[in-house]
Amino acid sequence: MKDIYAELVSIGDEILYGQTLDTNSHYISVELDKLGIRVKRKVTVADNRDAMMRAFKEAEDNADIIIITGGLGPTKDDLTKPLLAEYFDSEMKMNEDILEDLKSRFAKRDRELNDLNKGQAELPEKCTPINNKYGTAPGMWFEKADKVFISMPGVPKEMKYMMEDIILPKFKEIYETPVLIHKMIKTVGIQESILAERLENWENNLPKEIKLAYLPGLNQVKLRLTASGDDKEHLEKLLDKEVGKLYEKVGKYIYGTDETNLAGKIGELLKEKGLTIACAESCTGGYIAHLFTSNSGSSEYYRGGINPYHNDLKINVLGVNKETIEQNGAVSEQTVVEMAERVRELFGADIGISTSGIAGPGGATKEKPVGTTWVALADGDNTQTKLYHFQFDRQSNIEITANSLLNLVRQTLSSK
Amino acid sequence: MKDIYAELVSIGDEILYGQTLDTNSHYISVELDKLGIRVKRKVTVADNRDAMMRAFKEAEDNADIIIITGGLGPTKDDLTKPLLAEYFDSEMKMNEDILEDLKSRFAKRDRELNDLNKGQAELPEKCTPINNKYGTAPGMWFEKADKVFISMPGVPKEMKYMMEDIILPKFKEIYETPVLIHKMIKTVGIQESILAERLENWENNLPKEIKLAYLPGLNQVKLRLTASGDDKEHLEKLLDKEVGKLYEKVGKYIYGTDETNLAGKIGELLKEKGLTIACAESCTGGYIAHLFTSNSGSSEYYRGGINPYHNDLKINVLGVNKETIEQNGAVSEQTVVEMAERVRELFGADIGISTSGIAGPGGATKEKPVGTTWVALADGDNTQTKLYHFQFDRQSNIEITANSLLNLVRQTLSSK
Repeated sequence: MKDIYAELVSIGDEILYGQTLDTNSHYISVELDKLGIRVKRKVTVADNRDAMMRAFKEAEDNADIIIITGGLGPTKDDLTKPLLAEYFDSEMKMNEDILEDLKSRFAKRDRELNDLNKGQAELPEKCTPINNKYGTAPGMWFEKADKVFISMPGVPKEMKYMMEDIILPKFKEIYETPVLIHKMIKTVGIQESILAERLENWENNLPKEIKLAYLPGLNQVKLRLTASGDDKEHLEKLLDKEVGKLYEKVGKYIYGTDETNLAGKIGELLKEKGLTIACAESCTGGYIAHLFTSNSGSSEYYRGGINPYHNDLKINVLGVNKETIEQNGAVSEQTVVEMAERVRELFGADIGISTSGIAGPGGATKEKPVGTTWVALADGDNTQTKLYHFQFDRQSNIEITANSLLNLVRQTLSSK
Repeated sequence: MKDIYAELVSIGDEILYGQTLDTNSHYISVELDKLGIRVKRKVTVADNRDAMMRAFKEAEDNADIIIITGGLGPTKDDLTKPLLAEYFDSEMKMNEDILEDLKSRFAKRDRELNDLNKGQAELPEKCTPINNKYGTAPGMWFEKADKVFISMPGVPKEMKYMMEDIILPKFKEIYETPVLIHKMIKTVGIQESILAERLENWENNLPKEIKLAYLPGLNQVKLRLTASGDDKEHLEKLLDKEVGKLYEKVGKYIYGTDETNLAGKIGELLKEKGLTIACAESCTGGYIAHLFTSNSGSSEYYRGGINPYHNDLKINVLGVNKETIEQNGAVSEQTVVEMAERVRELFGADIGISTSGIAGPGGATKEKPVGTTWVALADGDNTQTKLYHFQFDRQSNIEITANSLLNLVRQTLSSK
């Protein structure tokens, strides 16, 4: 058994120029990691002959598996197919199976196959085509000595289907890989350097099989533990032990592990306690609702939300007192208290939460600069509030408000 | 004047293992592009001595500017600083200015500087430190012959502040760059291959200064035109002319250019016509509200939203008839019609929109598989509906539902 290394090559001026965020290589990393295949390097190069040929060569020297995304569309700026044909010294040939498949799929939708789409069925002879269920450009699988080259389109859903249905199952057949186990511990409400200080001794005494990394975010820090070796059972025991120590030291900041997200964790707590939640969002504008409803099964604990962006809606639909807003403004403790209490009642939830703040860049006053944010949590017994002064851009202010309020919900539920 | 090339080096196992999405290099690309500095390549390597030293060397050979992010935290897994000291053959030294700054910032927050944070003020002698307003790790600026090496922390807000306030202004002083103008044309509701076919002749006759790329997404395709040369005025005229031709050929699918997003464009149309909008979201769960409110100034046209996730809220808070849901189900044409009409009235908006569907992976029935989605738009005169059968994962089903409904709003407003 030896380590299997992969190099990911993304093709596209649009990534280099910052017009597209490359999420493909992120997805591929996640999936290869699950199989114990180590991504050694990621490279993004331009839609340009020299840069692409050099990237193919470097990747071949560097890794066992080379996964190329992008540059496979029907249009003229797409160079991957002709350059791979050149790299593998292979003739182009019309693949009749692919052509038939394209024809029948187009016929089903009452559409004619145009010349651009027909050209997609032309492939280098030396490759094995990879079926594209959601698009017209087939993927390609090349082998050269013991190296595997794979080319896929840059459209995420097309690439994902190829990975899940064809490529990953094939990798599982071909490669025997070492054991690599990651455990992600997710904290909220504590700064990276304070966390690191509290964990210094523990970190210095980690067993040699385990590596630690800090991944900071907006009011959240993730700790990644990676165990590697041959004996899965041994590694799992080691990891469990160290994770146990982590909970002893900083457990009150830990909201979950691995794929858990904060809203999903709150969902679990709510389900355990048989409680439900509803939210009234002003400055977060639907984002907290979106975080809850991004979790499958959220209808079990999430009642719904309202986003009364204007004061008359806060008053007439949600039921905040007119005087409260007139006397204190919409961004005030009194207003978020009433918002949280009213949404709790109106939506028939056990817990009501609310936000009102100035996300920016407009809307600031002298007394209330951009980032001034009130949140509240009403649970029927009492109503808690918090005031924050964030200093980020609009999007980050919205996100950190959501994370901070969700942490208040988590703390409140954990102490119930 | 010569082309100035940059190479971006991201450091971090967490990116290679797929635990963090690299958004830093995307932001840096955008900013360098605005200055006419061409990002030639992006590389991500592990927190590992050999990989990092090799990346520094390759980047030095490949580009004029090398921008390194990550690996600069206070913790042990952060190798960038010692390795850059080694690469530049430089001693480490405590920087008293940085230390004083850290001390006074900590004092303001009534906190003691711990040893980990103190260590951040120790820097290679050969670098010029870059102040970090939001964190404790300073950036570093090295020069070697005519090459510039910059190292910044991986925390996005810290990196962004350094770029905006220090690095980009300095680049503007130092480099005289060729003119590079991008124009992004954004379409919605037309497939990439159909668009490419309609544009084939036009594309074949583009002037040599202009390059075209297709960037497909969820029900959206972006067209990027890039003009490069010496004469800005000439390039702008050329671009304007070609963009004009694009509008002639496929104008009805174009919703905007450059930074415009679909919800923001709808905002402009609403403002022009003096209209307002409100949304009642079931399956999209607050995401459409979030898209509207992510735009600064959205309160001018966006009244608010409601996200009645449960049927009793659709009935009791929003006002959908109980019989409508009992007889047709929540995912039905009749229900979305009433949702759109009721939210329009309740929120006092000119236009009401609504969604109800099965985002998945749970919730499907034989008659209504995952992806079955109804949307509606009520404008007081009449109410339009659309039925979709999407086949993506939960998150993509939510996104494409939002994009499709927003396109219906755009079309309706454009024809008013």
